[in-house]
Amino acid sequence: MKSLPKGFRGAAIAAGLKSTGALDLTLIENTGPLFDAAAVYTSNKVVAAPVIWSREVTKGKLVRAAVLNSGGANACTGPQGFADTHHTAEKVGELLGISSGEVVVCSTGLIGELLPMPKIFAGLETISAAMKTDSLDDVSRAIMTTDSVPKVATANIKGTEFAAIAKGAGMLAPALATMLSVVMTDAVLPKNAQEIFTRVTDRTYNRIDSDGCTSTNDTVLLMGSGASGVALSESELEAALMDVCGSLAAQLIADAEGSTKTVAITVTGAASESDAVEVARACARNNLLKCAIFGADPNWGRVLAAVGTADAQMDPLNIDVILNGVHVAKESAPFEDKNLVSFAERLVSLEVNLNVGSAIATVMTNDLSHDYVEENSAYST
Amino acid sequence: MKSLPKGFRGAAIAAGLKSTGALDLTLIENTGPLFDAAAVYTSNKVVAAPVIWSREVTKGKLVRAAVLNSGGANACTGPQGFADTHHTAEKVGELLGISSGEVVVCSTGLIGELLPMPKIFAGLETISAAMKTDSLDDVSRAIMTTDSVPKVATANIKGTEFAAIAKGAGMLAPALATMLSVVMTDAVLPKNAQEIFTRVTDRTYNRIDSDGCTSTNDTVLLMGSGASGVALSESELEAALMDVCGSLAAQLIADAEGSTKTVAITVTGAASESDAVEVARACARNNLLKCAIFGADPNWGRVLAAVGTADAQMDPLNIDVILNGVHVAKESAPFEDKNLVSFAERLVSLEVNLNVGSAIATVMTNDLSHDYVEENSAYST
Repeated sequence: MKSLPKGFRGAAIAAGLKSTGALDLTLIENTGPLFDAAAVYTSNKVVAAPVIWSREVTKGKLVRAAVLNSGGANACTGPQGFADTHHTAEKVGELLGISSGEVVVCSTGLIGELLPMPKIFAGLETISAAMKTDSLDDVSRAIMTTDSVPKVATANIKGTEFAAIAKGAGMLAPALATMLSVVMTDAVLPKNAQEIFTRVTDRTYNRIDSDGCTSTNDTVLLMGSGASGVALSESELEAALMDVCGSLAAQLIADAEGSTKTVAITVTGAASESDAVEVARACARNNLLKCAIFGADPNWGRVLAAVGTADAQMDPLNIDVILNGVHVAKESAPFEDKNLVSFAERLVSLEVNLNVGSAIATVMTNDLSHDYVEENSAYST
Repeated sequence: MKSLPKGFRGAAIAAGLKSTGALDLTLIENTGPLFDAAAVYTSNKVVAAPVIWSREVTKGKLVRAAVLNSGGANACTGPQGFADTHHTAEKVGELLGISSGEVVVCSTGLIGELLPMPKIFAGLETISAAMKTDSLDDVSRAIMTTDSVPKVATANIKGTEFAAIAKGAGMLAPALATMLSVVMTDAVLPKNAQEIFTRVTDRTYNRIDSDGCTSTNDTVLLMGSGASGVALSESELEAALMDVCGSLAAQLIADAEGSTKTVAITVTGAASESDAVEVARACARNNLLKCAIFGADPNWGRVLAAVGTADAQMDPLNIDVILNGVHVAKESAPFEDKNLVSFAERLVSLEVNLNVGSAIATVMTNDLSHDYVEENSAYST
């Protein structure tokens, strides 16, 4: 029952959205004195009603509350779905005495079904009467879908506190791959917090890639209460955010129930960081390569075949591959004996050196396993 | 033992490249009087030695022979691999009394290993002494890797003959997804045969997409002997090529051993044909959607989530989804009961109407199954 940062209250209940009776609805309130906010949303063109709503809310960079539910994504639900999101924000506004336009709404679960609104309204009545400061654990549990454990990260810097929660990601949320995260802090944020938060998101959450599928609901929200009275510099904020978001990203990839391996793909010698990310992502999304890793098969030819599909500067005849420390390919040809590669550990380290520059990036992914197919083949029925 | 078109001879043997003792080396000779050729290669930046060689050969649009082997891709094999390809072409030139610069070389199999050249040289000696016209069946079998059946298509138009062979494609060639195809005809080809062949390839082979992985060795070759003396018009050639290449593409997707469903994804109402292809391909490559189809789960939300990732003109709130004839989503929201969708047949028809234009395209793919993971997790070891 860890505490939220100063200036935050929250609570969660089982509103009956999940058939299991687990926590499925939570409310987080920023009681100020500041109500700074920044947010990053899914890049998918098809977005859920809560994303359409929340994108408008966070344009003003002022957020007083966030309401999040699991047990239903409220995506592809038409005008009624949007009205439901709107009414949820209005209900929260009414209960907390704030404007609905200051309320972010997040949903996660199955696409294409309307939420049971009476249960949400009743749940919010109960929650709003039970708001407390030591609710970090409850809040983190209420957004879980197929996650096996709740994800929480905290940090302290210069007397300020950060507490962050997250759920989902690809293989561990085989349903919809929805990623939700809320970062709370009592620090006074610098003016360009949005810019910093976008950059941190890009280097943490956007560098875990379980299956290349982006969701209709992905939302990452930063809320600052300023209650510590301590103003952080840009670099201090960035360091604290890298800490909590980096930790959560690692927790997400580690909780990939359908996987047997975590693969850290590091591309070195790239002409630019974006080239390095592009090449790493091409590997992370290559099914043949991911199956080979599941099978503990040091088939580095699939690495080069994947690298060659990336839109990045390279010399196809001068690429090196180092797999779990074994330099299996040099100048795009066999080098050390691939049978020396051990797959005994869960973590697999794959390094690709493009030998054309000095930029580096790492993307984390998982293998493609029988359990991935199993979990994702029988979700909605 | 079907015959090759007039002006062609061929033969195949088991040269010992495959441990099974199956046919693995074949030679096709165009004896003229014309030696017209066109070719399309993999878009992968990392290409095998035979592709580097053959791209140069076909620039001249004159090809007298093609030598193809299974049992080894000769990809990522460095300068020695390229020398081996060069020597193979020289050997064929010597045996047939033609220039090595008129010999296309194709290889398929595992990446990163050198070919056993003495076996190839010995095999070519034997083959070149056994060239015959009724070798279509042998020639088609010699390029098989994990294909369960050889793929052959023939066509006749205005007294000309077309005979075409193919191997591979994604799930049915779990190794490397290499696609090789040779189309032989005794027609006199129009001047812009390359342009027509590229367009046909784009609308046939490039619209089957088992797993989105492109290979280092993909080669599609057209050879025209002109031996019929009949000149085809552009539209006649295009019709005949669409016939044989379309048939082979369908055979490739039907032979997907690791799959349980063939999925025809048709995008209608697109602003352009390229938009339609882009959206269909986004669906064909979405693991979550492909797992749902394996599980006979009418989870159309995954269709919209996949569509939304495509770089194409769309109105996210006005997309229709018709799954096996059931109009499951209209205006991006639930419409007919998804439980009416039957998955009894192998063929699954998925239609996505973008409602923004009148362009249409179909891409064929497969589901993502346990057998896909199994076949691809234990290939090289």
